[in-house]
Amino acid sequence: MTKQNIFDNETFFQGYRKLREREVNANNLFEIPTLFSLLPNLEGKRVLDLGCGSGERCIDYVRRGAAAVTGVDISEKMLSVARNENSDPAITYLKIPMEDIGSISGTFDVAISSLALHYVEDYQGVVKNVIRLLSEGGIFLFSQEHPLTTCYSGMGDRWTRDENGNKLYANIADYCVEGRKNSTWFVEGVQIYHRMFSTVINTLADNGFRILKIEEPYPEDELVKKYPEYVDLYHKPDFLFVKAVKEGGENPI
Amino acid sequence: MTKQNIFDNETFFQGYRKLREREVNANNLFEIPTLFSLLPNLEGKRVLDLGCGSGERCIDYVRRGAAAVTGVDISEKMLSVARNENSDPAITYLKIPMEDIGSISGTFDVAISSLALHYVEDYQGVVKNVIRLLSEGGIFLFSQEHPLTTCYSGMGDRWTRDENGNKLYANIADYCVEGRKNSTWFVEGVQIYHRMFSTVINTLADNGFRILKIEEPYPEDELVKKYPEYVDLYHKPDFLFVKAVKEGGENPI
Repeated sequence: MTKQNIFDNETFFQGYRKLREREVNANNLFEIPTLFSLLPNLEGKRVLDLGCGSGERCIDYVRRGAAAVTGVDISEKMLSVARNENSDPAITYLKIPMEDIGSISGTFDVAISSLALHYVEDYQGVVKNVIRLLSEGGIFLFSQEHPLTTCYSGMGDRWTRDENGNKLYANIADYCVEGRKNSTWFVEGVQIYHRMFSTVINTLADNGFRILKIEEPYPEDELVKKYPEYVDLYHKPDFLFVKAVKEGGENPI
Repeated sequence: MTKQNIFDNETFFQGYRKLREREVNANNLFEIPTLFSLLPNLEGKRVLDLGCGSGERCIDYVRRGAAAVTGVDISEKMLSVARNENSDPAITYLKIPMEDIGSISGTFDVAISSLALHYVEDYQGVVKNVIRLLSEGGIFLFSQEHPLTTCYSGMGDRWTRDENGNKLYANIADYCVEGRKNSTWFVEGVQIYHRMFSTVINTLADNGFRILKIEEPYPEDELVKKYPEYVDLYHKPDFLFVKAVKEGGENPI
């Protein structure tokens, strides 16, 4: 299976860095606050960060009391930022594709992945490795691009607009056609893997996770007043969060 | 809260009966086969059918060995069909709104609801009653209109079409705006309650259910060749199925 390393593309890398440097972006407004709201108590915990990128979250987890954080990423560029800007004695950065975490030894209490799993073709492989690496009662918390975003089939605009260009509807096509969708984000040929909601959840349930919470964050009225451009998220969320626990034996199905 | 009894509207009732009598319809092709594929073993089980309508499924459950089936529906018209056409010594039909099943005494091993919960405003109330009525290890299996169908905000066509009228995209608006959506199906003013995926799942998880399986059925290639009109389901499924089990104590969140 393909292991994508788009973050080592220089144009992508620079575009991504610039986007994340903007104070107001969807990550700061929705993704990070939702991720934090779903975090379990990290005091003394061993944390695995899958697709850690430049390591901002790894530092956050240490500040929240994690005893040890292992940050895993495929991109050398991102990891060099991580080592320069977000190093800490409690953090170990490993250059490994997420698909290869089976090679990691040790046990973790919490596995977290922020906006990385939609780049991965072998989602089930990752889930199987995560549950093996987690202790009993261990938490798996991740965000990914929302299935209503990843399903986009790439024909024309993602939106139906009125004569003034205002967005009326999200154009949803091929929601039931899973697999690779080519996307353009800073560069052409970024590969996103679309999975239906049911596949995301069933892969967890089938492999021994109990679903605790799902979130599809959208803006509060107050925020839309301040940043009207985010009103579109009412039509189609950008992100899906899943929090699950490794719990008790086999799925009884 | 509103308890809707649209099935006792004569025009709706006749239209619905006629639709269901057609041999080829979305129920026969997708809904019923998926429901059956998710059924647990019913041998000797006490089954509760929420929104049983005219009782076809109640009879099916008896044929599959259920010891007793309680069919609950708000509509007198539907229940009179059930009593005439689908009666059995093992079946009890009760004229109760789904929201009022708290008044039922007894314990059930399996609670099933086929395409009824999207008519109900107080979904959480139903879930709380179902888990109370289920034995430990009891199964709750239901289908509902898919959230991509219930979210429709009623402005214009549900689809963006090409110049020949072929469907290009489903128009998705207000997915994050939950609550009542007025729909026209045989008659005007049919009330559908839209809930996001996360609400459907979290309400179960928060109240003590473990999610076992989710299904969003869509047609196999063979079926699309035979009935090309169902190709649209690749863009937007009609139905969502959830199978959950009452299991072990509190949600650890």
